[in-house]
Amino acid sequence: MPRFEKVKYRAVPVRELFLEMKNLSELMIDLAYSAALFNDQELAEDILELESRVDTLDYQLEMTIMIAARDAHDAEALTGVSAAASAADKISDAAGDIAAIVTQGIGVHPIVSQVFEKAEERLMQARVGADSSLVGKRVGELDLEAKMGIDIIAVRRDKDWIINPKKTEQIRNGDVLIARGVQSGISEFKGLVEQKPKGKRD
Amino acid sequence: MPRFEKVKYRAVPVRELFLEMKNLSELMIDLAYSAALFNDQELAEDILELESRVDTLDYQLEMTIMIAARDAHDAEALTGVSAAASAADKISDAAGDIAAIVTQGIGVHPIVSQVFEKAEERLMQARVGADSSLVGKRVGELDLEAKMGIDIIAVRRDKDWIINPKKTEQIRNGDVLIARGVQSGISEFKGLVEQKPKGKRD
Repeated sequence: MPRFEKVKYRAVPVRELFLEMKNLSELMIDLAYSAALFNDQELAEDILELESRVDTLDYQLEMTIMIAARDAHDAEALTGVSAAASAADKISDAAGDIAAIVTQGIGVHPIVSQVFEKAEERLMQARVGADSSLVGKRVGELDLEAKMGIDIIAVRRDKDWIINPKKTEQIRNGDVLIARGVQSGISEFKGLVEQKPKGKRD
Repeated sequence: MPRFEKVKYRAVPVRELFLEMKNLSELMIDLAYSAALFNDQELAEDILELESRVDTLDYQLEMTIMIAARDAHDAEALTGVSAAASAADKISDAAGDIAAIVTQGIGVHPIVSQVFEKAEERLMQARVGADSSLVGKRVGELDLEAKMGIDIIAVRRDKDWIINPKKTEQIRNGDVLIARGVQSGISEFKGLVEQKPKGKRD
C-alpha cells in the first residue's frame, strides 16, 4: 500500500463517509484487543491499514463538508459532523496504538491481556478453506446468531474489507471472516470455516 | 468539581487502574452516542467529568509504572501497559469530543443522529424514584437480561460511578441507572425505575 498517496476528493455523501468511519473505528477496537490477546501480527498490520483508511475517509469527509457549506448557517450545522468524525478518527487511532504494541514487538504485558480477556464476548479470525462447506453460502443462510450465538462482523476479501456483511453476501474461498460471540459458538464456527477434507492436516 | 486539583499518587495496582480506564472509556462511547442522540446536557456533562477522571487514572497509572520499573527489563515490559492505557485515554477523549458537541450547543446534525441511531441496541438513563419497586433490590434479583433483554451497565450514586455493577449491588433511592438493551425492554425498565405512586404526576 503506497503510504503517501494523495488523498483525492470523492463525490460520496457525507453520511456514507461518516457511517463507514464509525463502523470501522468500532470494529478496529475489537480487532485490536484480539490482535493484542493473540499476538496476531497479521491482524495488527491490517488494523494499521484500516487506521490509514479511516484517516483518508476523514480527509474526504472534511473536503465534502467544505464544498457543501455555502454560508454561516451551513458551516455551523456541519461543524458537529466534523467533530463527530474526528472522534471516530481518534477511536481508530487508539486501535492503531494497541495494534502497534504488537507490530513493534513491545509485547503485551500480562496485565493488559488479563484486562482484555475480561470481555465476555470473544473474537475469531479464520480463513475460509476451499473445502469448507461455507463456500458459496450466503451469510443469512447460516443463521449464526440463533444457531451458535455468534455474528460475522467483517469479511476481508483480498485487500477489501466488508464491514457488517449483509445477509445476501456470499462467502468465497479465501475470505477471512471475523466473528464475535460466545466462546462455544466461536470454536464451532472456526472448525466449520477452516474445514479440511477428511484425513488431510497441515 | 475542582478542575485543577493536583493529581496525587495512589497505591493502587496497575491492573486495577487500567481495568477501570478500559471499562470507563468504552462505557463513555455508549454514553456519548446517547447524549448526542437525545441532546442530553446533563449526561454530556457527566461524560466530560468521566473524561477528566480517566485523565487522572492515566496519570496515576504512569506514576505507578515509573515506581514499579527498576531496570531496563521492567521498563520494556511495562511500556506496553502504558501504551494500552494511552489508547483507553484516547477513546475517552473521543467520547468527550462527542459530548462537547452537546455541551457547547453546536447541535447534532441529522447525519450524525442517523448514523448513531443505526446501532441496534439502545441506551437508557433514569433516576430511581422513592416509590420505585426497585429500591432495596439487588441487581442480580432483577434478572434483567433474561426477563427484558437488558443490562445495567452503570450506576451513578451522588458523585460516584459504579461501572458494571455486581449482582449483589443494592439499588438505592436516587441512583441514576444506565442500561443497555433491546428497545422494548428499555421502555419497560424505564417505567419501573421511574415508578411514581398512583395518581401522582410531575
